[in-house]
This record gives sequence, C-alpha cells and structure tokens, in this order.
Amino acid sequence: MKMILERINDNMHFKATNEAGHTHELSGDGLAVGPMESLLSAIAGCSTIDIVMVLKKMRQELIDIKVEVKGTRREEIPRLFTKIHMHYILIGNIKDKKAKEAIDLSVEKYCSVSKMLEKTAEITTSYEIRFEE
Amino acid sequence: MKMILERINDNMHFKATNEAGHTHELSGDGLAVGPMESLLSAIAGCSTIDIVMVLKKMRQELIDIKVEVKGTRREEIPRLFTKIHMHYILIGNIKDKKAKEAIDLSVEKYCSVSKMLEKTAEITTSYEIRFEE
Repeated sequence: MKMILERINDNMHFKATNEAGHTHELSGDGLAVGPMESLLSAIAGCSTIDIVMVLKKMRQELIDIKVEVKGTRREEIPRLFTKIHMHYILIGNIKDKKAKEAIDLSVEKYCSVSKMLEKTAEITTSYEIRFEE
Repeated sequence: MKMILERINDNMHFKATNEAGHTHELSGDGLAVGPMESLLSAIAGCSTIDIVMVLKKMRQELIDIKVEVKGTRREEIPRLFTKIHMHYILIGNIKDKKAKEAIDLSVEKYCSVSKMLEKTAEITTSYEIRFEE
C-alpha cells in the first residue's frame, strides 16, 4: 500500500494521492484536516466500515450511520492521543444487542486502525439507535 | 480534538469534518482514500510538517518537498502495518547533514503520528536532495 504526499503551497499544505488516484488534502497550517485529525477520521471510518458489513450480515436494516470521534492528547511532546472516544449514531430498525455486538467486534477484533492506535490510546465507544432520520 | 464522520452513499463512503469545517473523504469501497491509506498520509504529513519547521529554523532553503510512503500489512486480521517506509524528496539548497537531522528529529522525537504507529510498525526513512526542480 502506497501514498504520495505533495506540497501544494510554500508551507505545510499537502495533497496525498493513493494508488487508484484518489486524493485528500492534509495541512499543518489550518487550511485542511490535520494529521492527528486524520487519525481520528481513520479510526472512525475503519470501524464504521466493519460495522456496516457486520450489520448487513446480521440482516439489520441500517439506513444511515454517523460517528462523533474525540481524541484527548497529552500535553508533552510528542502529543500522542491518550484517549479516543467514538460515539456511533445508528439510524434504522436495529436491535440494541446487534448494534453493541457489531461495534465491539469492530473495535476489539477487526479494525486495523483501532488495533494500532490502542497501543497508546484508550479506545472507548458509545452508541445510540434512532429509528427515524 | 473532534471529527464528525457522515455517510455519503448507502454503503461505505464517508465525509469527515473537523472543528474548523474542513473536510476530507474516506472510503471502504474504493471511492476515496481508505482508512489505512489515511494512516500513511497522516504519518507522512505529520513528519513533513516537522521537517519543514526544523529546516526553516536551520535556515535551509527548502523549495519543495515530496514523500513516498509505503506500508506493509500482515496477512492475519486485524491487518496491521508491520512496516512503514517514508522516502523524502527534498528540493532546494539543503545540506545533507541538516536533512538527515531534520528527518531523524521528526520521526524519533516530534511526530505524534509516528510515535503512535511505531508501537506496531517498524518505521524507516530514506531521502534524496535535489538542487533543481
């Protein structure tokens, strides 16, 4: 797996391109999502991909899903995340037990990003189920 | 630090938004950069931000910088990165010793993303200096 990072201003604003040609921007000067923010969206995205797949296998009707992810950084440099919390909002006719099972399976077993970040950050989750959007 | 992840199709294509309102897309179905690719761009971006700052302090003239980052994943699930290699292409009138020092300082000391991912992946670097673009 390979990414190319190129600078698009004369300071700290970058464009990253994957092997399929998809890009996203990244910035250290507030012009785009920052690298540590990118870790938060990576863990949220990775675990949500698992949850979507697991709920489909469980024949649960997921209409939509949204995640709020918060990271707490320590004060000392390097400013690692010490805690990451993900709150999942599941919309659809989903059984509570199935939602919990899908989230736990993702964070504890399948999600590669979570399994990498859990070495330094305590990963916690919560969720709510809404039947109507 | 907080991100919101929202689904933008009926499967695994997401938009992540930071507190300043900047967004990037993320996908599990090949429609955008994937979560593990996003980790690669995060480590490359994070370390490059440090390198830009350190070279500025060292009064080195950096005209441009580009990074090729490769991740090797293990075969078993969760498919963690076991190795990450970053190759930096520095363009400008930069002393070899200063380039090496800036890269080492970033990866070994300052870059929070690198310090988190090094718990599971061996992080290695290489670089080249080009005087003309």
